[in-house]
Amino acid sequence: MSGIGKTITCKAAVAWEAGKPLSIETIEVAPPKAHEVRIEIYHTGICHTDAYTLSGLDPEGAFPIVLGHEGAGIVESVGEGVTNVKPGDHVVALYTPECRECKFCKSGKTNLCGKIRATQGKGVMPDGTTRFKCKGQDLLHFMGTSTFSQFTVVADISVVAITPRAPMDRTCLLGCGITTGYGAAIITAKIEKDSTVAVFGAGCVGLSVIQGAVKCGASRIVVVDVNDSKEEWGRKFGATDFVNPTKINKPIQQHLIEMTDGGLDYTFDCTGNVHVMRAALEACHKGWGQSIIIGVAAAGEEISTRPFQLVTGRVWKGSAFGGVKGRTQLPNLVEDYLRGDLKVDEFITHRKVLDEINDGFETMKQGDCIRCVLDLRAK
Amino acid sequence: MSGIGKTITCKAAVAWEAGKPLSIETIEVAPPKAHEVRIEIYHTGICHTDAYTLSGLDPEGAFPIVLGHEGAGIVESVGEGVTNVKPGDHVVALYTPECRECKFCKSGKTNLCGKIRATQGKGVMPDGTTRFKCKGQDLLHFMGTSTFSQFTVVADISVVAITPRAPMDRTCLLGCGITTGYGAAIITAKIEKDSTVAVFGAGCVGLSVIQGAVKCGASRIVVVDVNDSKEEWGRKFGATDFVNPTKINKPIQQHLIEMTDGGLDYTFDCTGNVHVMRAALEACHKGWGQSIIIGVAAAGEEISTRPFQLVTGRVWKGSAFGGVKGRTQLPNLVEDYLRGDLKVDEFITHRKVLDEINDGFETMKQGDCIRCVLDLRAK
Repeated sequence: MSGIGKTITCKAAVAWEAGKPLSIETIEVAPPKAHEVRIEIYHTGICHTDAYTLSGLDPEGAFPIVLGHEGAGIVESVGEGVTNVKPGDHVVALYTPECRECKFCKSGKTNLCGKIRATQGKGVMPDGTTRFKCKGQDLLHFMGTSTFSQFTVVADISVVAITPRAPMDRTCLLGCGITTGYGAAIITAKIEKDSTVAVFGAGCVGLSVIQGAVKCGASRIVVVDVNDSKEEWGRKFGATDFVNPTKINKPIQQHLIEMTDGGLDYTFDCTGNVHVMRAALEACHKGWGQSIIIGVAAAGEEISTRPFQLVTGRVWKGSAFGGVKGRTQLPNLVEDYLRGDLKVDEFITHRKVLDEINDGFETMKQGDCIRCVLDLRAK
Repeated sequence: MSGIGKTITCKAAVAWEAGKPLSIETIEVAPPKAHEVRIEIYHTGICHTDAYTLSGLDPEGAFPIVLGHEGAGIVESVGEGVTNVKPGDHVVALYTPECRECKFCKSGKTNLCGKIRATQGKGVMPDGTTRFKCKGQDLLHFMGTSTFSQFTVVADISVVAITPRAPMDRTCLLGCGITTGYGAAIITAKIEKDSTVAVFGAGCVGLSVIQGAVKCGASRIVVVDVNDSKEEWGRKFGATDFVNPTKINKPIQQHLIEMTDGGLDYTFDCTGNVHVMRAALEACHKGWGQSIIIGVAAAGEEISTRPFQLVTGRVWKGSAFGGVKGRTQLPNLVEDYLRGDLKVDEFITHRKVLDEINDGFETMKQGDCIRCVLDLRAK
């Protein structure tokens, strides 16, 4: 199956156009150019961001494209000048790269690397071309990763080697959701011991925020979700309270402020709903409460509040990929997992093979699905 | 004129109703009760917040009232249990009190004291009554200070003694505007050395932000104001650049991002205009830029932006009284002034006596007025 320096033919789920199901196709994956890495993807999660782009609502979404951004696999070959990974390495693909050279990476203040932002946003490799072809047509790359293919090519700054002791059907989830939530709690918010925390939306990201809050020693962790079944999920990960905002007779922020004698020290939006983002900010304690936006809102939507909320000491911020620098910090999260400090197995509620990927997308929309993991090599 | 334990009769500017000029009246000022302090006010500044409440636009504004919150004077007498000041002390009135006992004061995270918030908001002393009477009618207190009177009564936690070496016609300005801007830069934002800063609105508060930025070692300080005469003011206080947003052909945030290769490290809104607040946030550098709202918006107005602005690393926060704990930190600012590190004299563009207070309000609305200081004892 492998052929270093040669084009590989393999199966992939191709999104030919917006709003249509994915098609399983045989595609050609060109060899990696300089500073590129070709990875055999073993497992990938399906995330709401994939569904959002597929839906056509993302104004920057372009087609045809190979979606997927939460993947783990093994390096098949590397292009000239690649020194951070080698063939045979177990790796996780990073949609937030880390070049260690740009203004952002050197700032010490953010995990957002600027090096390949422009080309990644356009769905091409840093040289402006793509490595995927199907039926004579170029396919675009997605988020610099395109993990819905048995083989993919990524920039060398968009991949990190991790220990082969960690199974890839688990580590793939560290490529997005789990890291995003856990990092938002630990790195972005730096939750202080004995703090009170509210998490809006108890999906993969929200449950991972809870894990981060537990690790930081939060004294109270309130889950807010419209789905009652999330109470059990929340408690399993360490939440102390649950509120269904549709079952109280007042605005959720007011309810939470009363519940916690003034409001929360930290709140997290993991829904992408701009009204929830506002409630999360306004549920913060006057004087010091911080609200962190993690969810991705639909295009054109805006958040708003009275400026008095900020003047009286609340802080509004956001987090992308949990503030985690992938190449530097992701291996630590894998160690947390192996030591038993970070739950990952529990997130996998569904498993599918590549041919069933459209079922996987349907499954994700149901309340009982936290994560559906695809095995790209099984039939 | 003084009469410890007795009611004092003196002159004050009374706001009988919204939207009308102030009336100079002879009022009665009752002696201080327990934990209260009666102050002979020597000088007071006139601030936009006084004008806002007088206009009637503030839905919480109530009448009749004695306005004024930027005042300095000498303690005339104290009520039972007062230990922090004594008769003869030179003092500044504090609209942001500091009790050192409440959850807020003890948190170490905010200067917003909660002890007398409810009664102060209602315009009464902590026991629920007022100390002012005029023509047989009770007059309300304003912001816990009411400095537009030759004598006022405040809670003991709402006053700080400062060195008599500092002239009161200067120290009165530390009761609001100067402290608010200077503290926002130094305490709320904690501007790092070599940072880039933009200040929207170069009035008393904005110019004081510039002073704080200079003290913190900012490398570039851009003033944004619609009034070209503010360029000279800005440069006098240490600004390096000036932009008049009405004279460029693109949104101010875009202009600033281009000017600074990606945006500012810190921006400050000192206008109270919610559209400016948005521009200030969006002019911040991706990954780490922080925008601090200082200006007070009109009732009911809201700020908004795309959440993507925060998810990509910008932080939106606010500052009240510059984050300064009045009793603990104001004396340090007075020392900064006496050492020549904090400009105060330069702010005083106009001087009036109490009888001219309505002229003072008119003067404030003109672009060439930074601060108008009233002498309450001169004719």
